Amino acid sequence: MIAKKKVAVSVGDLNGVGIEIALKAHEAIRSFCDPYYCISSSMLQQASALLHVDIPKDFNLLHVNGSFTVTPGVISASSGLYSYLSFLKAVQATQTQRVDALVTLPVHKEAWMRAGIPYKGHTDMLRNYFHHDAIMMLGCEKMYIALFTEHTPLKEVASAVTYDRLVAFFRDFIAATKADNIAVLGLNPHAGDNGVLGDEEKCIAQAIARVNSDCSTDVLHGPLVPDTAFTPQNREHFTYYIAMYHDQGLIPLKTLYFDESINVSLNLPIVRTSVDHGTAFDIAYRHIAKEASYLNAVAAAVTLLK
Amino acid sequence: MIAKKKVAVSVGDLNGVGIEIALKAHEAIRSFCDPYYCISSSMLQQASALLHVDIPKDFNLLHVNGSFTVTPGVISASSGLYSYLSFLKAVQATQTQRVDALVTLPVHKEAWMRAGIPYKGHTDMLRNYFHHDAIMMLGCEKMYIALFTEHTPLKEVASAVTYDRLVAFFRDFIAATKADNIAVLGLNPHAGDNGVLGDEEKCIAQAIARVNSDCSTDVLHGPLVPDTAFTPQNREHFTYYIAMYHDQGLIPLKTLYFDESINVSLNLPIVRTSVDHGTAFDIAYRHIAKEASYLNAVAAAVTLLK
Repeated sequence: MIAKKKVAVSVGDLNGVGIEIALKAHEAIRSFCDPYYCISSSMLQQASALLHVDIPKDFNLLHVNGSFTVTPGVISASSGLYSYLSFLKAVQATQTQRVDALVTLPVHKEAWMRAGIPYKGHTDMLRNYFHHDAIMMLGCEKMYIALFTEHTPLKEVASAVTYDRLVAFFRDFIAATKADNIAVLGLNPHAGDNGVLGDEEKCIAQAIARVNSDCSTDVLHGPLVPDTAFTPQNREHFTYYIAMYHDQGLIPLKTLYFDESINVSLNLPIVRTSVDHGTAFDIAYRHIAKEASYLNAVAAAVTLLK
Repeated sequence: MIAKKKVAVSVGDLNGVGIEIALKAHEAIRSFCDPYYCISSSMLQQASALLHVDIPKDFNLLHVNGSFTVTPGVISASSGLYSYLSFLKAVQATQTQRVDALVTLPVHKEAWMRAGIPYKGHTDMLRNYFHHDAIMMLGCEKMYIALFTEHTPLKEVASAVTYDRLVAFFRDFIAATKADNIAVLGLNPHAGDNGVLGDEEKCIAQAIARVNSDCSTDVLHGPLVPDTAFTPQNREHFTYYIAMYHDQGLIPLKTLYFDESINVSLNLPIVRTSVDHGTAFDIAYRHIAKEASYLNAVAAAVTLLK
């Protein structure tokens, strides 16, 4: 009998929906992996009391220091700090091979900021921690979207589109996914309409040509006109897309596959997956949060280990 | 018996799919309006010969001067100029009430540029011609998207988002559509996450509050987080969306409703609708262009006249 894979679960912002989802999905997840939840016994007891649910007996913990009063739906520095420490614990447990992979529940960016955490999110922290250019990819079996820029204000996106960064990103993405048919989006309306509506597509086209030449085959296709890239016809051709910015890729993904999508960090020394939703403060501790994305994230982590 | 409405049809770039669609859909359109095609007899004969189709006997023309050799799929100044003159003829015929409304077939932006036409597209020209802030809205019965910025390079979008322009746009849009439940998108990832990922949402929120206050009711909702604005749940709440930029609104629209969408110019003294696709040079004169969007555009023009 092959031992189940061990998965560290960081519990996310305890004022949000993460711990509720972890408790709700535990039985289902327990059937195909051994989860280790990064939280202290006392914080878990506080959350479960607020939820009026029992803590399962085999709910194994990796202890995280710290203590504060959980307040559903509230952005706070103390909750932000605890969510960071839970994540850090999970990263360390994975790095030291105490567990095999890491699944993260959602943190709140402003809570991290209030706690003085200098990262915009999990992927940003992992990139810094491992000194690797982690790639953020979201999606599900039907469609995966890799983000060339992630949590970048829209006004700063265009200046981040440079030849050298594109070539490095394309190479890393191909190496990490082994994908051989990838759609690359343009940046501007109509992919610039031959330069009339912006000219970053020239640089994207050059980077595509360079990497295709290195691969000796046309792995990358584009730059595609963004607004028609996700029509049913194009979705028949492509499963992997590289979007130039956050909403360019995540609007179509969430429009089509909102509940089932997950987040995968590629190009890192560890396997890390995540849910594709936020802390959902508006519905926290109300027993209505959906666990589909979390179940898919844990399943994907186990699959990626194979 | 009520006389049918007269509709001027500008034929678009003759090196593209426009004239093919017009000929193919003529019988269907003839049943509910009187179309007048803005093209010369000789240019029409050239196109129909290339298509190997007969010109219907009741294919009424509004003559447009000029002559060139049609070359399917080629961007050219002469074809760009002719498409502009066809459009201008249709605008003038509508303005002088020789016809009741205007439907446009697609032009090619680069061909216009090569011909020295100083507009980025039809809507841009209409704005200048009528000295009105025309609003570009695309969609179908299930979802309409108004574009706050249109054919703007991505790097210039953020600086166009100003309080005064937003307030004027919101007022014009509400007046033109009489809509009472409108979703307004944020600009940045996560709608800025309370300023962490960009701060234009403050200005959008202020403009929304101002216009809602003038309306004495919450007609406008937002700024919504862009990547979740088009989930099935949100689409149940909203039919009208205001997008801050082209691809933010047109990616989800074309992902969901590619073939059936049309383009409507709001806030003008004339009624003008258009197909929601481009010149499709790659399939021009190959008898595979679809006419659904054109049929919907003509039907919408007739409906808007009522």
